[in-house]
Amino acid sequence: MRLTLAMALALAFSPAPLAAQDKPAEPPTPGSVVAASKPSEWKAIDPADLLVMDLAPDAKGARRQVIIQLIPSPFSQGWVNNIRTLAKAHWWDGTSVYRVVDNWVAQWGDGEDDPQKAKPPPAGIVKVPESEYTATAVADEPILDPERGLLYGHGLIADQDSYSITQFWSGWPLGRDQIVGPGQHNWPVHCYGSVGVARDLAPDTGTGAELYAVIGTPPRQLDRNIAVVGRVIEGIENLATLPRGKGENGVYAEPALRVPIVSVRLGSELPAAEQPRFEYLASDSQSFAEYVHVKANRHDAFYKVPAGGIDVCNVQVPIRRMGEK
Amino acid sequence: MRLTLAMALALAFSPAPLAAQDKPAEPPTPGSVVAASKPSEWKAIDPADLLVMDLAPDAKGARRQVIIQLIPSPFSQGWVNNIRTLAKAHWWDGTSVYRVVDNWVAQWGDGEDDPQKAKPPPAGIVKVPESEYTATAVADEPILDPERGLLYGHGLIADQDSYSITQFWSGWPLGRDQIVGPGQHNWPVHCYGSVGVARDLAPDTGTGAELYAVIGTPPRQLDRNIAVVGRVIEGIENLATLPRGKGENGVYAEPALRVPIVSVRLGSELPAAEQPRFEYLASDSQSFAEYVHVKANRHDAFYKVPAGGIDVCNVQVPIRRMGEK
Repeated sequence: MRLTLAMALALAFSPAPLAAQDKPAEPPTPGSVVAASKPSEWKAIDPADLLVMDLAPDAKGARRQVIIQLIPSPFSQGWVNNIRTLAKAHWWDGTSVYRVVDNWVAQWGDGEDDPQKAKPPPAGIVKVPESEYTATAVADEPILDPERGLLYGHGLIADQDSYSITQFWSGWPLGRDQIVGPGQHNWPVHCYGSVGVARDLAPDTGTGAELYAVIGTPPRQLDRNIAVVGRVIEGIENLATLPRGKGENGVYAEPALRVPIVSVRLGSELPAAEQPRFEYLASDSQSFAEYVHVKANRHDAFYKVPAGGIDVCNVQVPIRRMGEK
Repeated sequence: MRLTLAMALALAFSPAPLAAQDKPAEPPTPGSVVAASKPSEWKAIDPADLLVMDLAPDAKGARRQVIIQLIPSPFSQGWVNNIRTLAKAHWWDGTSVYRVVDNWVAQWGDGEDDPQKAKPPPAGIVKVPESEYTATAVADEPILDPERGLLYGHGLIADQDSYSITQFWSGWPLGRDQIVGPGQHNWPVHCYGSVGVARDLAPDTGTGAELYAVIGTPPRQLDRNIAVVGRVIEGIENLATLPRGKGENGVYAEPALRVPIVSVRLGSELPAAEQPRFEYLASDSQSFAEYVHVKANRHDAFYKVPAGGIDVCNVQVPIRRMGEK
C-alpha cells in the first residue's frame, strides 16, 4: 500500500504552483493569492511598533527571539503606552516567562505575588480604565456580497460567529457589537499568538508589565475582559514549546524553571541594521479579500468539501519580513 | 502598585469556592458546575477505546505518555478498526513523531515517503472510502431555549458558527449540515487535541497508520476532508511542546530529531492495574447543559462582559480519571 506519508497533511499549506500557460489553471490557494498580490497591497510595520524579546538560549544554545507587533490606536493605547515606557526603561531585562498552561497562555514579567518583593515599575506607568477594552467604531458597515456569502466592504470583511460580529481593520482581527452608528464599539479579539495584559480581579489592575501570549484555542471569552495589546508575529514557537508549569495555575513550581528574559526592546531602539522590518497584507486590499474568500472556500486538490466560511482567528493575516516573497 | 501577578489570568480556570451557607452564593463557574455534578452524570470510557502512546523519555529522563480516546460508532469506524489492528500488531513501536508544525499539528507513524522503504502494514488493514468522513444523523433536532439563547435538546447542545451547525453527542463535538431528516449528516470536528488520519491527495489513501494531533487553532477547514478518529485526553503537552520541524512542511530535517515512539497499546491490552480509567461528563446530562451555559455566560468576579456564546471547540468536554473529583 503506497502512502506519501510526510506530505499528507502538508498540502493544506503549500502554495499551488502558478499555472503555466500550457497547463489548465490550478484552483487558487491562500499561498497562491499571497504570491500574486501586488507590492502596493502590503504595508510596512514601523519598527517602533515592534517589541523584540530575547529569551535565554535553549539547552542546545539556540537563540530564542519573540517579535510582537503592538496594536495601533484607537485600541488599548493606555496599556500600549505603558509597554513602550517599560521597554524603554529596559524593565523586562532579567525578568522571566514564569507561567505556561497548555492550550491557554504563556505569561511573562516579574511574576512576583508579594508586593513587598515585586519589581517597582518605572516612572510614567499609568492606571488604564476598563473603558479602554473597547473603542468607538473604526470602519463602515459591512456590505453583503450575495455571490460569495461573505460580508465585506471598505477595508472590512465581516462574519457573525459564536461570540460576536467579527471583521478586519488595518490588518487586525476585531469584534464588533450589533449596534450600528452612535454607541457602536469594536475590540481586538483573542486568537493564537494574541498578546494581552494579565490583571487581578479589578479590570484596571493590569499595567502591561505582566503579559501573556495565547498558545492554544482562541479564548474568545476573554474578549472585552482583558486588554489585547498586540500579537506575536515571529517566534511564537519559542513560547508555545516551553514546558507547561506544574505549580498553581500553571506557574513554574520552582524558580529555576523560569525562562530568563535577556532583553525586551522596541524595534526602533535597536541599531538600524538589526531593526526588524515586517509588512502585512492590507485588509482593505483586493488580495486580502481574495485570500479570505479562498481560505473559506478551498477548491485545490486536497479539499473535497470547501468549508464555505472561516473563523476570524483562522484567517491569519499574512505578515512577512520585507524583501521576502 | 500592587499586582497579584501570577494569579492574574488564572481565575478563568479555578473552580469558585462552593458557597458556604453563611455567605452569599458565588456565581457558578465551569469548575463549580463540574464539582457539583452527580456521579451518575459521568460515563466510563472503556479502556478498549483508548490508545496509550509512550514516547521516549525527554532529555531529563521524564516519562512522556499520550492517551487518545477513539471515536465511537458511527464515526470513522473503518479507520478506527485499522488503528485497533495496528495497535494490536504493535506496529507503531519503533516509529516516531516526525513532523511538528506550530499552530497546526504534530504527526507520527512511519514517516517514510519512499514506498520501497516504507514499513509494511499488518494484515487486515483495509481501504476506507471517503463516504465515511460523515455519518447519518445521530441526534434529534435541537430545540431553542428562548431564555438562554442556546439551542439544546435531547443529548444535544447546538450552535451555528462560521463553519456549520455544531452540537455535542456522546461527549463529542460534531458538525451537522442544514438538512433535517433523510440526508442529514454529522461529522466530528477538528478541535485542539483532535486526532486525525493523515492522507495523500485521494481521500481514501489514509489508513490510520499516520496520525496527527491538532496543537493550535482548530483547523475546521479540515472537517469532512480528513477522518477524525479520536482526541488526546491526557498528555497533549508531550506533543505540543515538541520542537517545530524545520524541514519541508514541518518534517524534522534530520532523522535524529525524530521523537521515538516506544509503544502504542490499546488500554485493554495493558495489565489490569495499568489500564487507564477515564470518564466523561455525559453531554445529555443536566450538568453538561449547565456547564456549557456557564462557560458561555461567565458572571464570576473576573469577567466584566459575559461572551453570550461559545465556540464548539472552546467547550472542552470534561474528562477526568475515575476517582478524581
